Amino acid sequence: MTAAAEGEPKDARAIRKLVAEGLAVVLTSSVAPPERPCAVGAGLRTKVNANIGTSLDYADPERELAKLRAAEDAGADAVMDLSTGGDIADIRRRIIEHARVPVGSVPIYSAAADARDGRRRVVDMTADEIIDAVRRHMADGISFVTVHCGVTRDVVRSLRSSGRVCGIVSRGGTFVERWMAHNDQENPLYERFDELIDMAHEHDVTLSLGDGLRPGCLADSMDRPQVHELMVLGELCERATAAGVQVIIEGPGHVPIDQIEAQIKMQKEVCGGAPFYVLGPIVTDVAPGYDHITSAIGGAIAAASGADFLCYVTPAEHLSLPDEEQVRRGVMAARIAAHAGDIGKGIPGAADWDRRFSALRRQRDWEGQLAHCLDPELARKVREHGWPGDDEVCSMCGEYCVFKLADETVEEPGRTAQ
Amino acid sequence: MTAAAEGEPKDARAIRKLVAEGLAVVLTSSVAPPERPCAVGAGLRTKVNANIGTSLDYADPERELAKLRAAEDAGADAVMDLSTGGDIADIRRRIIEHARVPVGSVPIYSAAADARDGRRRVVDMTADEIIDAVRRHMADGISFVTVHCGVTRDVVRSLRSSGRVCGIVSRGGTFVERWMAHNDQENPLYERFDELIDMAHEHDVTLSLGDGLRPGCLADSMDRPQVHELMVLGELCERATAAGVQVIIEGPGHVPIDQIEAQIKMQKEVCGGAPFYVLGPIVTDVAPGYDHITSAIGGAIAAASGADFLCYVTPAEHLSLPDEEQVRRGVMAARIAAHAGDIGKGIPGAADWDRRFSALRRQRDWEGQLAHCLDPELARKVREHGWPGDDEVCSMCGEYCVFKLADETVEEPGRTAQ
Repeated sequence: MTAAAEGEPKDARAIRKLVAEGLAVVLTSSVAPPERPCAVGAGLRTKVNANIGTSLDYADPERELAKLRAAEDAGADAVMDLSTGGDIADIRRRIIEHARVPVGSVPIYSAAADARDGRRRVVDMTADEIIDAVRRHMADGISFVTVHCGVTRDVVRSLRSSGRVCGIVSRGGTFVERWMAHNDQENPLYERFDELIDMAHEHDVTLSLGDGLRPGCLADSMDRPQVHELMVLGELCERATAAGVQVIIEGPGHVPIDQIEAQIKMQKEVCGGAPFYVLGPIVTDVAPGYDHITSAIGGAIAAASGADFLCYVTPAEHLSLPDEEQVRRGVMAARIAAHAGDIGKGIPGAADWDRRFSALRRQRDWEGQLAHCLDPELARKVREHGWPGDDEVCSMCGEYCVFKLADETVEEPGRTAQ
Repeated sequence: MTAAAEGEPKDARAIRKLVAEGLAVVLTSSVAPPERPCAVGAGLRTKVNANIGTSLDYADPERELAKLRAAEDAGADAVMDLSTGGDIADIRRRIIEHARVPVGSVPIYSAAADARDGRRRVVDMTADEIIDAVRRHMADGISFVTVHCGVTRDVVRSLRSSGRVCGIVSRGGTFVERWMAHNDQENPLYERFDELIDMAHEHDVTLSLGDGLRPGCLADSMDRPQVHELMVLGELCERATAAGVQVIIEGPGHVPIDQIEAQIKMQKEVCGGAPFYVLGPIVTDVAPGYDHITSAIGGAIAAASGADFLCYVTPAEHLSLPDEEQVRRGVMAARIAAHAGDIGKGIPGAADWDRRFSALRRQRDWEGQLAHCLDPELARKVREHGWPGDDEVCSMCGEYCVFKLADETVEEPGRTAQ
């Protein structure tokens, strides 16, 4: 708790109180406590998660460890291992072993992979296998698990009648929906939620209630299936909190800019103020290749409106599995969104960074600026790319630098702009 | 007017009415009418401007023409030539000659450059030289001019008592303020505003009333000097509109995310609904190298709140003069902001692009997506970078593609996820 309070505007005692009230969580694990546990919730700095993990086509564990390092070096507060390809149990354990930040995961991917390894289909998983995967992840030292408990048969009926453009876009949500349709059974993650509560309690793990029916395009945002699932999550959230288990709620996704604030307010209201973990949201569907930007726009507004945890989106989203550089760019864009949001919602201290930095800018203290900006390495590269060799100015304005002009006494000809 | 109405939700007649009421402008010039005149204002698509131009250290005209092409190819609706280095009259004329979109400029840079060529200082310009520069730009075929008319002696007194962190960050504003201090005279662009009205009328040019005292950091946003200058601009705007001259108002700058909507509403109120042209705004000061993203966040919120015209910010901002690639990236980020804002403010037709595009995504029509997205070239590159060679899916989810899973009938073993 003390480690989680580092850099926060609240102390360990205040955070403990928030956790008890269900208004914040500390992402950690009793099995493998991370070096940097991370507090997420009301009045705390907005945190950034980076998704890494293999896919069926790219399953090199070393590459994922490189992405882990890229994410941590860029300043991610947590990572999620979403591996679906290769020996995913081994990859998960290696990521937990090497990570300094809390590691989250989506256990149903393991159950699907195990079925696949046994030459069975996703729909052939047993309910026990789905539940056991959650237990195995927790036993390995995962700090938070995404469980798609809200994709119930009732919610899926809402979906069937909704006329969605994109249907379900969550992989876990799709697995659950396909499984229910094939087996004509209720979602075990819903029916056996008490088991999830017990195991989360045992391992001190946070349940991240997944939004299997999050909108996959602007047109589907805030429709009945999305709201219906959120209402189910709100009830489950209440049960988990009452049992002393930490819980966060996952949210969209693709949202028109004018609906973001309403989405956040709705979630906070329906889920008793539980921390809200959003994916993006991206504010237009049409810009693949730029979804770190479309999501930075939505994430900043979400954070300013009260979202607590931003899942980054990389420039590779919708197109390919990200590489290290795309991971780095995704984290940086999400950190910008989180920080802009923190200024907007008045997190104590957030605006101080900008004020101190702007004073360095005013003083034309270039070394100071390069040392204290978001990404010193990139900023130095961009400056040097067009550097006129003058320590005082940059190549954009040169001698017409407004700060230089302001510093000159107009009556001293030798020091004025010529 | 007909050309300007192309792609707009309003026809030429409706736009003419908006222009007559001062609620919109058509950026054009009777001297050199651009191939693609551009309508800016209420109920119209949010437009994007790209600043190009030499600096004292980089004054190659060919490079500026390459940046013009990069801006136009990326989809900029207008460009401004902000050249301050080299033979800037020649560069301006070449940009006007080659541009298909309207070209704007800041005439006082010419007056400053002329003084410099004559080995005089900025403060040694005469009032006539400042005014004549505006006339010369219009005679060359410029479609809109930034004139810093609101930096009056009275407004500068507000500044002196304000305790700003960054003072004045507009180059034109700095020139005017330094000139007034040195010469102990009122701003000629304010005192002789009627002459500007007359010459704008003669050449059918739009006056863009510059915000010389725009905030240069979050801490200075919406302070008394900024609001004071805006009030002066509001009065001048009214005079120009009454005289049948098109006028737009320039705005910030650096603005905390929670003040952006208020800034837009204030401007619209104080300036009788005149089109608002914002630079960014950027929502944090601390991310040099990423100001295309910080400004996309602010620009999207500004556009959704009613801003009509976004001046792009490139990743080079605050660090160096942008090159072609940085121009391209700046335009793309600003176009994302403009489009997201248009969806937010309900511009008819804006959301249709996203809906059509999302239908292609749902159908896994990759060629369709790559043809109809914001930046087809980049999207194709990112997809092919990690392409598993399967036409149906991408390397992120592979066989676990949610749309592929949804399309499969779970009862047909041969076609389901294995």
